[in-house]
Amino acid sequence: MSENLSVTVWNEYRHERDSDEVAEVYPDGIHAAVAEGFEERGFETRTATLDDPEHGLSEGVLKDTDVLTWWGHRAHEEVSDHVVDRVVERVRDGMGLLVLHSGHYSKPFKRLMGTSCALKWREADEKERIWVVEPGHPIASGLPEHIEVPEAEMYGERFDVPAPDELVFTSWFEGGEVFRSGCCYNRGSGKVFYFRPGHETYPIYYRDDIRDVLANAAEWAAPSDGPEPFFGNADPLEDV
Amino acid sequence: MSENLSVTVWNEYRHERDSDEVAEVYPDGIHAAVAEGFEERGFETRTATLDDPEHGLSEGVLKDTDVLTWWGHRAHEEVSDHVVDRVVERVRDGMGLLVLHSGHYSKPFKRLMGTSCALKWREADEKERIWVVEPGHPIASGLPEHIEVPEAEMYGERFDVPAPDELVFTSWFEGGEVFRSGCCYNRGSGKVFYFRPGHETYPIYYRDDIRDVLANAAEWAAPSDGPEPFFGNADPLEDV
Amino acid sequence: MSENLSVTVWNEYRHERDSDEVAEVYPDGIHAAVAEGFEERGFETRTATLDDPEHGLSEGVLKDTDVLTWWGHRAHEEVSDHVVDRVVERVRDGMGLLVLHSGHYSKPFKRLMGTSCALKWREADEKERIWVVEPGHPIASGLPEHIEVPEAEMYGERFDVPAPDELVFTSWFEGGEVFRSGCCYNRGSGKVFYFRPGHETYPIYYRDDIRDVLANAAEWAAPSDGPEPFFGNADPLEDV
Amino acid sequence: MSENLSVTVWNEYRHERDSDEVAEVYPDGIHAAVAEGFEERGFETRTATLDDPEHGLSEGVLKDTDVLTWWGHRAHEEVSDHVVDRVVERVRDGMGLLVLHSGHYSKPFKRLMGTSCALKWREADEKERIWVVEPGHPIASGLPEHIEVPEAEMYGERFDVPAPDELVFTSWFEGGEVFRSGCCYNRGSGKVFYFRPGHETYPIYYRDDIRDVLANAAEWAAPSDGPEPFFGNADPLEDV
Repeated sequence: MSENLSVTVWNEYRHERDSDEVAEVYPDGIHAAVAEGFEERGFETRTATLDDPEHGLSEGVLKDTDVLTWWGHRAHEEVSDHVVDRVVERVRDGMGLLVLHSGHYSKPFKRLMGTSCALKWREADEKERIWVVEPGHPIASGLPEHIEVPEAEMYGERFDVPAPDELVFTSWFEGGEVFRSGCCYNRGSGKVFYFRPGHETYPIYYRDDIRDVLANAAEWAAPSDGPEPFFGNADPLEDV
Repeated sequence: MSENLSVTVWNEYRHERDSDEVAEVYPDGIHAAVAEGFEERGFETRTATLDDPEHGLSEGVLKDTDVLTWWGHRAHEEVSDHVVDRVVERVRDGMGLLVLHSGHYSKPFKRLMGTSCALKWREADEKERIWVVEPGHPIASGLPEHIEVPEAEMYGERFDVPAPDELVFTSWFEGGEVFRSGCCYNRGSGKVFYFRPGHETYPIYYRDDIRDVLANAAEWAAPSDGPEPFFGNADPLEDV
Repeated sequence: MSENLSVTVWNEYRHERDSDEVAEVYPDGIHAAVAEGFEERGFETRTATLDDPEHGLSEGVLKDTDVLTWWGHRAHEEVSDHVVDRVVERVRDGMGLLVLHSGHYSKPFKRLMGTSCALKWREADEKERIWVVEPGHPIASGLPEHIEVPEAEMYGERFDVPAPDELVFTSWFEGGEVFRSGCCYNRGSGKVFYFRPGHETYPIYYRDDIRDVLANAAEWAAPSDGPEPFFGNADPLEDV
Repeated sequence: MSENLSVTVWNEYRHERDSDEVAEVYPDGIHAAVAEGFEERGFETRTATLDDPEHGLSEGVLKDTDVLTWWGHRAHEEVSDHVVDRVVERVRDGMGLLVLHSGHYSKPFKRLMGTSCALKWREADEKERIWVVEPGHPIASGLPEHIEVPEAEMYGERFDVPAPDELVFTSWFEGGEVFRSGCCYNRGSGKVFYFRPGHETYPIYYRDDIRDVLANAAEWAAPSDGPEPFFGNADPLEDV
């Protein structure tokens, strides 16, 4: 199935160019590492970044995209509202959206959630254990009961999002917090998956298990072929 | 319980002043009819309208409001984004919001839902039957199995909202459509209830059963006294 | 995908043998009509009926079944608890279960829901219009906005089931009722879909659109390859 | 509100009579400690135990009970199916049910959930931190962001229950697990709340914060006054 799906991997791509520490982990950018995972798994993959024209997300690119992944961190405000409108509109029309880690504060995610999307965080190189709480969900396919990430940035509850339509993962942190780290949402005819792991200073997007989750999520979030609803003034179907 | 709750009834209040047909049904405005229902049931009630300064929704008013009801139709775009920010922020802090009928297209509701909130509609004086699908829900308290509205504007599915956290009512229409007409949402620490019935040309807000639903909804949506979450950089609770 | 999925179509198969009226509609049994739909769409299909040894649902058959469909009506009580245990256990292990029409009162469905599964009903040859309320759901793939069934038995709310994890369809009936007619549930590692249409006296299971829904539902409900959870006394993963 | 609610606290009451270690913690039984918390908060409270006639849960007692709490552990199988039928029936009619700790394996809870309700467990006197994930929920009223229990039995995911209708708490454990520890369900016209903390060897039910949670949960789960649905053969409401 995956070979027919077209994934666009979006990245802010600033940390990697400004910081030696980050460049050492992701020399070609986080998007290159994320895209490699999709390519290995047979998806048609392209990348786009903030500093590309139209952020790399023209009408044409979005039209050709089944699933968009989003990583941003410090430049959320530089993403143009016009492009955000376009992304959000395309999600409502059926495109899948995978929001990664610090993307929780991105404009498209906040717009689609309707909440602040705030959380607790800490950078302390601590252990994260990602538990599968819904083993029958397609996003958990092929996974063990938990994934251990030896060094992670902590995100802790309260995560200010609407209760997910389906909760697939919950994280445990060494420092004492928990987090709903794999959250599924339906918005319009599209699907959104928030996945917590990943930070610019940790090589998390090179891991096979993390890439498997993203590939599963892309298959889950891919557009389906349902009816396009008519909205507006409608004639009666029965005598009134 | 209700006597301690403070309800602010917000109304666009334009149709009633411009149209004789509407003024005949709601001579003092829709807000007056909605407010009367709350007063009768012991709530502390005030009203506010679009053309009041700050649309009647100053910081002070919102701070003193437990539950805000919202009716708007043709002037959604005239509501200032600044006031919308304030309303949305206050909902996330715990204020209840009851969105009435054509308020489905209001700025606060669309902002809190993250979707288009579009639907089918028709003005044909047709019958609506509002079925209780969740009889154990507090918003259904004291109601019969269904409420019949002899003449209503039709709203039909697809209603482009996130699947409600709890679905209390579903409507049947004479012309052949169905509609999820009583939808509960949690957003931040606040609660939102969308309730379909009511239109400027029908005397629906004078009905006791409709007023009972709104009173139940206000009690359900009232702020609770839960923890105010800390967001941001958090110290570990365990040794890392 | 479907060609790899194995579907077992279970039928009570009593009405068809006892009633000329029913035999005229389903001369080879309801199971034959349902199975034909799956075969046409490339599924590996077998049938089983109440009066087969072990109701046709031996350990071996269930082990080889990805998705089981269930139609029963007047002989629910004759299904042995032993076989019901086996079916329910297999669902929790990942098998999909599609419960059809009067199967709402079957033992496996009631056991998996935990509620009475009661409803209103009426046989009056009336029109049903099945609305898609979640157009992005895979079970709605390829469908129009609504399906019209000219003559149906009515099922009306309150349908006493837990609120579905996902609600795909809602029905409108000529006689004035509504019904949540396409309900998705997760139970253990398995998935359950309840689909309302279909009655022994109407040729509904010959329709292409109804067969499409069942095929979509079978793909949605098929077992995934998630972790098999360990239950019981567990060693700590960290020093305690 | 609470002064009008009648709570029945049910306890297996075996450990406390057989084990000196347990008797030291709960000399009058776990039910006495749980009941004391409700009494202090103004509820009308009574207790019932396994070895009472009809387990203390006659028709009359259940009829007079708004909310039933359930603690059992090693004698689940000794609870008569007849009484379980009665309890389950009463929940569906509107009675609230609070299921405590090892009650996850009780007959009424398993019956109402439709799943195995299995989990991981460990007795290692380890720390539990119960996080509020839904601060706007009435069950979180008056609580801090998290509750710390210094010594607890561990329960870990996968918890094999249906995804809760509302998830209020998630626990962190010292040994590396997480657990959905406060789960709300609607079943029929009744409400069920599962609350994890509490074990026969820890004085958890004497804590004010734990008692506050139980009191909040009782108010949330109390019967409402919704319509009693008619089930069965129904006349049409419109001409057919």
